Amino acid sequence: MKIDGKHYFTIWYDEKEDNVCVIDQTKLPFELKIKKLNTYQDGFSAIKDMLVRGAPLIGATAAFSLYLAAKENEDISFINEKIINIKTARPTAINLAWAADRVFKSLDKKNVKNSILNECKKICDEDVKISENIGNNGLEIIKNIKKNKVNILTHCNAGWLATIDWGTATAPIYKAKDCGLNIHVWVDETRPRNQGSSLTSYELINENINHNIIVDNTGGLLMQKGMVDLCIVGTDRVSENGDVANKIGTYLKALAAKDNNIPFYVALPSTTYDKKIKKGDDIPIEERSDDELKLVTGLDETGKLKKVNIYPKNSKGYNLGFDVTPANLITGFITEKGIFKPHELRNIFK
Amino acid sequence: MKIDGKHYFTIWYDEKEDNVCVIDQTKLPFELKIKKLNTYQDGFSAIKDMLVRGAPLIGATAAFSLYLAAKENEDISFINEKIINIKTARPTAINLAWAADRVFKSLDKKNVKNSILNECKKICDEDVKISENIGNNGLEIIKNIKKNKVNILTHCNAGWLATIDWGTATAPIYKAKDCGLNIHVWVDETRPRNQGSSLTSYELINENINHNIIVDNTGGLLMQKGMVDLCIVGTDRVSENGDVANKIGTYLKALAAKDNNIPFYVALPSTTYDKKIKKGDDIPIEERSDDELKLVTGLDETGKLKKVNIYPKNSKGYNLGFDVTPANLITGFITEKGIFKPHELRNIFK
Repeated sequence: MKIDGKHYFTIWYDEKEDNVCVIDQTKLPFELKIKKLNTYQDGFSAIKDMLVRGAPLIGATAAFSLYLAAKENEDISFINEKIINIKTARPTAINLAWAADRVFKSLDKKNVKNSILNECKKICDEDVKISENIGNNGLEIIKNIKKNKVNILTHCNAGWLATIDWGTATAPIYKAKDCGLNIHVWVDETRPRNQGSSLTSYELINENINHNIIVDNTGGLLMQKGMVDLCIVGTDRVSENGDVANKIGTYLKALAAKDNNIPFYVALPSTTYDKKIKKGDDIPIEERSDDELKLVTGLDETGKLKKVNIYPKNSKGYNLGFDVTPANLITGFITEKGIFKPHELRNIFK
Repeated sequence: MKIDGKHYFTIWYDEKEDNVCVIDQTKLPFELKIKKLNTYQDGFSAIKDMLVRGAPLIGATAAFSLYLAAKENEDISFINEKIINIKTARPTAINLAWAADRVFKSLDKKNVKNSILNECKKICDEDVKISENIGNNGLEIIKNIKKNKVNILTHCNAGWLATIDWGTATAPIYKAKDCGLNIHVWVDETRPRNQGSSLTSYELINENINHNIIVDNTGGLLMQKGMVDLCIVGTDRVSENGDVANKIGTYLKALAAKDNNIPFYVALPSTTYDKKIKKGDDIPIEERSDDELKLVTGLDETGKLKKVNIYPKNSKGYNLGFDVTPANLITGFITEKGIFKPHELRNIFK
């Protein structure tokens, strides 16, 4: 997708420098900074410190981190150690383990470095195609809402910045725009890290898509008032039965959608479906520092980037990154293979 | 209640200076600043600009503003004009109109100024008693939760800073603390204005009550995990049928409480019950500037108060102040007269 009119991917291999480049998303929306990853540790930190985030992008970055590891040392035992280690960078998104396992399986022991690099490129190419197919399939849902203007609510950023291109939840929105449909997006700001206001709104501005940021508290009222036609969110992991781990707060929006008979869809690339985990309760939920709640970054009146502490002295927060939306609140999953009910997933993604 | 160990009310009449003092809540939690209100316009602005907020406190401030008007001009037509005007300062809280009407009814045309001042003092004294009775009645609910530690979730600030003393939703919590019960409070930060983190947490710290701030997205997950025993919130207006207008986001928590069989109580002073409005849909919902979403105030690393803009350039927000929680999601109302089901209110508050 585009930033200031120029096309970008979120991650790419730089052949000349033999390193990996990512957009440093901790700097958005204030600065577009490309971070060069030169070592395995660079890749690990990019995931852990959330320079990259979003399940599919975390997966691709994990794969590329293993390529960077192979640049340091092609010894199989070293690579295997890193394959285990990279999975610990963040706990909730299944794509991390998925990508690491995929690298493990494709490893050519006679050609370690190149076989990993090839797999990384494949993972990225496939992810773009998956997102685009999610877009095409989700477009049909939007088309079926026979309204002059379709209001879509989304939570967090399951946009192109969370993938390689197109996004998952946003892909149908971008496709709808390309078709000339009249779309308006309600963007949940998504505290504490504000991925909605910082990333989704930033994407939509750059793609000229009509939207408003709302605080996470507002979606319920908008649904009551008939101002939301459709919800589409992404996911970090879906369990075998169709429960959805996604950014904290997703569950509340799903409850409100159910209460107001508004369709609630989850954009699900097959890479994020974890058939090994039977139900949502078993998905590990990441606890993070309460600094993410206290410290807020923005531009001061002189345009300088400032971090401010918004809490009273001695106040403590509690910061859980994800929640689990039970399958019974989900209208359907928009996947690259079509749109499915929760109970159908296990037969589609065998 | 106390700040730094010293007892305060949120508003009081200063006999010596013949003016009215309020705690400027826009400065909390960073600075305790007492604002002197000398004119009607000072009072009107204190409500409109949210130096004072919370339905009962807005009511008391409205009454005192009319006293300040009488200091300027005791002419009845002038006072009547201000009685109409003060109701426009903010739309949602019914206490504003209630207090203005009460001043109107008690007006002694031969002794305008003093009759208003007496009514202001009565309103304040009664409000303290109402809050304390809500505290005593709500305490019984907490006592009935037979647990070593009781986890209570609250949204926004219906604390003593929203009233004259004690608070509404917090009064049972303060009473429980005084009884030596083991209480822990989950404080929703309550975007966009963060009344939870700025005011409720500030209150609880000053009263030594164990709590954590959470982002507004988190409460649903905590309820799913059994980490919430009870929700208590305040309200800005309750319609005749028991629908509850309260700070935006309340509805989402009520849905989650219902979904997880957690009792959801609304602390309701009789002054906030509006039997003239039949149902919640008819309660006017305040729309405010999106600056409240964009601009966040906190302390920078040098301890200076700074306002930062957290939005991407050109992003727009949409800012609704309240939502309506339907009566069917409410376990009961904690009032000064006892605890009642939604359908009982109309018979209790005739």
